[in-house]
Amino acid sequence: MEENKSILKQWILSAITNRSGKELKEIFETIPNIDIAEAIADVDDPKILLYIFRVVGSEYSAEFFAELSSEQQEAVINAFSDKELMELISDSYADDIVDTIEEMPANIVIRVLKACPKDLRSDVNRLLNYKENTAGSVMTTEYIEMKDSVTVKEAIETIREKGKDAETIYTIFVRDKSRTLVGTVELSDLIFSKDNEVLSEIMDKDFVCCNVNDDQEEVAKKFKRYDLTAMAVVNSENKIVGIITIDDVVDIMEQEVSEDIAHMAAITDMEDPYLKTPVYKLVLKCVPWILALMVLQVFTTMILSGFEGEISKFAILAVFTPLIMDAGGNSGGQTTTMIVRSLSLDEFSGKDYGKVVLKELRVAAIIGGIVSIFAFGWLMFEMSAGIVNTDSILTIINENGGDFNVYMCLIAALVGGTLFVTMIISRMVGCSLPFLAKLVKLDPAVMCGPITTTMVDVISLVTYFLLWTQIIGPQFGF
Amino acid sequence: MEENKSILKQWILSAITNRSGKELKEIFETIPNIDIAEAIADVDDPKILLYIFRVVGSEYSAEFFAELSSEQQEAVINAFSDKELMELISDSYADDIVDTIEEMPANIVIRVLKACPKDLRSDVNRLLNYKENTAGSVMTTEYIEMKDSVTVKEAIETIREKGKDAETIYTIFVRDKSRTLVGTVELSDLIFSKDNEVLSEIMDKDFVCCNVNDDQEEVAKKFKRYDLTAMAVVNSENKIVGIITIDDVVDIMEQEVSEDIAHMAAITDMEDPYLKTPVYKLVLKCVPWILALMVLQVFTTMILSGFEGEISKFAILAVFTPLIMDAGGNSGGQTTTMIVRSLSLDEFSGKDYGKVVLKELRVAAIIGGIVSIFAFGWLMFEMSAGIVNTDSILTIINENGGDFNVYMCLIAALVGGTLFVTMIISRMVGCSLPFLAKLVKLDPAVMCGPITTTMVDVISLVTYFLLWTQIIGPQFGF
Repeated sequence: MEENKSILKQWILSAITNRSGKELKEIFETIPNIDIAEAIADVDDPKILLYIFRVVGSEYSAEFFAELSSEQQEAVINAFSDKELMELISDSYADDIVDTIEEMPANIVIRVLKACPKDLRSDVNRLLNYKENTAGSVMTTEYIEMKDSVTVKEAIETIREKGKDAETIYTIFVRDKSRTLVGTVELSDLIFSKDNEVLSEIMDKDFVCCNVNDDQEEVAKKFKRYDLTAMAVVNSENKIVGIITIDDVVDIMEQEVSEDIAHMAAITDMEDPYLKTPVYKLVLKCVPWILALMVLQVFTTMILSGFEGEISKFAILAVFTPLIMDAGGNSGGQTTTMIVRSLSLDEFSGKDYGKVVLKELRVAAIIGGIVSIFAFGWLMFEMSAGIVNTDSILTIINENGGDFNVYMCLIAALVGGTLFVTMIISRMVGCSLPFLAKLVKLDPAVMCGPITTTMVDVISLVTYFLLWTQIIGPQFGF
Repeated sequence: MEENKSILKQWILSAITNRSGKELKEIFETIPNIDIAEAIADVDDPKILLYIFRVVGSEYSAEFFAELSSEQQEAVINAFSDKELMELISDSYADDIVDTIEEMPANIVIRVLKACPKDLRSDVNRLLNYKENTAGSVMTTEYIEMKDSVTVKEAIETIREKGKDAETIYTIFVRDKSRTLVGTVELSDLIFSKDNEVLSEIMDKDFVCCNVNDDQEEVAKKFKRYDLTAMAVVNSENKIVGIITIDDVVDIMEQEVSEDIAHMAAITDMEDPYLKTPVYKLVLKCVPWILALMVLQVFTTMILSGFEGEISKFAILAVFTPLIMDAGGNSGGQTTTMIVRSLSLDEFSGKDYGKVVLKELRVAAIIGGIVSIFAFGWLMFEMSAGIVNTDSILTIINENGGDFNVYMCLIAALVGGTLFVTMIISRMVGCSLPFLAKLVKLDPAVMCGPITTTMVDVISLVTYFLLWTQIIGPQFGF
């Protein structure tokens, strides 16, 4: 892969050095634009870039331009004459132009907008005004719309004439006299229909569309649910104002997933690729959560602090606290992750909370049983094998007498019993918090993991020390 | 949404009770199949289901059948006559048939295969034999392939004739005399070309395809990278054997993301929807990891055990261990999550490890500085405000004398200093483990989070106690 890239780069550069337009054209005919753009990603000499655009011609230039880095795009725009810029831009889609100029300095933005034909310029301006992450901000305005009274023959003729400027010709959007969207026709329906049939007869009336202000995540879910390749975006009067195509949706899905994953790990978003994110931004994404979670630790600190007397009398108690806290954290994390993912895939709604809790209770009881029995055996082994320092126990035997094996069993039972409670609590908290977040209209992914951990820490430590002071400790003569 | 569903259900059932075929047909014309299927998801009376299929006819039946639950599908197949079954199946795509029979008992599978026309049956059998998660297992065999010498006019005629059986007619796959795949033609290219042009003149030669044995994750990445809607699947001789379409890829992407997320939280996969997964399976997905991580805790147990003497002399030391361990775990988790996600989006390759480490080192130094200063202040506050029990310090002052404020500062400096080291180590470990996993060809997502936590726990505890025994402790007269 890496090797192919550098070979391709050599090939392109040699074609340019030899001024062999024919060879360069051949490269563009046989290799996808994105691979070419990636191979020359570090070339920013405007002369080389300009030569490429002059040679490859309008068939490839707009699409290739969209694949370049914003630095390269800026260099190209600066090097272009006004005429060249106008040609490039009239071949581009409005949404690609918006993506380009969003990252450009003001003088470039003005030059690009000036170079736009009037219609395109108003589309670009409109797209720039929609709120981020709405259907309006990701839609494009190059679509084919026809009246429902048009015949199949007329429709195909119109597509032949005007289709080249549209982002897709595979879905035709059909409107009635009042310009309301009433159906969609697939190009395949046209191909299979008779010339004199009318669109209103062959159109799908069970089409799905979205509103300009809908969240892009909802849009992506509809594409998935209904297996769409293109969807109309309508305004509040049900008039079509743009379309969204499946390739944009694939990007949206990826962006939404990255957001969810980041939130689960207590990171503020991950919008940009890691290597392109500056150090100070990475710090800002991570450090507030670390500090917030540290403040939340005040509860565990208070509990341990409250039982300091017990710890100093019998230090082996402190040895097992990390084991209990980590097991609870891992178990709660598992549950939270499953529930958050299921919620974001719409596998269940808030109504199903009862079902989930009942199921988790059964899962937790079984896991609690297995884990506590395993922990009992494992601790007996650790203490017998001398992995754990048993001086505290020996001190007690010296003072009060008693049987070493019985004391080991009591310690192992203390940890095992605490883990049983911890497993149940962690799964209950872990499955409830995401539902609670949804109820108060927060993103279930945000912080549920770390907050579960903190709550489970508190409850399991209290259980541990209560079990010690009330039941196990007295057996040791405390 | 829930309300709409129950209204729709009432509507469908009343149409069926009134034997109003017209009304039922109208429902199918205006409402997407998946919404209808969901509304009647709990209807399993074969009579009702059969009535629906008899009324709605071949236009909707195959697609509607694919949306039903496997219990409903089984009921329908059992109730169908052989003739009805054959009609349904000849309208279905091979990949949908495979999806259906994969979950059916043997007698149903045999009946379905018997009902398949010969060609379809061999396709289904072949698809059933590809390994799970390969391109072969998700592809379908209904595509349009043409020779490169065919004219545009002939091509459109062929599409009109044979296109109805194909999963897509928007991409036509072009082969040469030796049946090797040499290009693709979009239906739009045909529409925009002259009747007498030949496919070899207008086809895209820079098409992208995949091998039957490629992993489905790689296939999904290619779709995303090249903005495809359909892709040819070829065998080792570059002959086309099937195609994959974008709607299947959307499902693959979701499945792969669920897998990644599960692995990060130490859960064995999440193949089925949560509510459909039986309790024992949920236990098996979760409990092995909890036990494995508990065994890994042996290292922290040993360290704490080794410093038991220090803890029993000065119990306040045990109070701050959870704070240090959790901060390290959270910080390592943040890094691991970012790196795993970037790796799975192919944002960088193994070669970029050096760049990543250097960047992380700078991020970690800054975060370490901020966190340790904050922790110093926060601990001073906790101790002054009496949130933390300071009896251990007072005991020392009683025995050896000394200033309370100085001792508080020393404790806060101990924790702050440990956190500085912890932040750096956690980010170094967190960014290195995913690269290491990739190097030895393991999934970077598996266990990187929990293993990072365990490693960081060990290193930060050792740092904490070394700092105490070597530098801070002696100031207290230990």
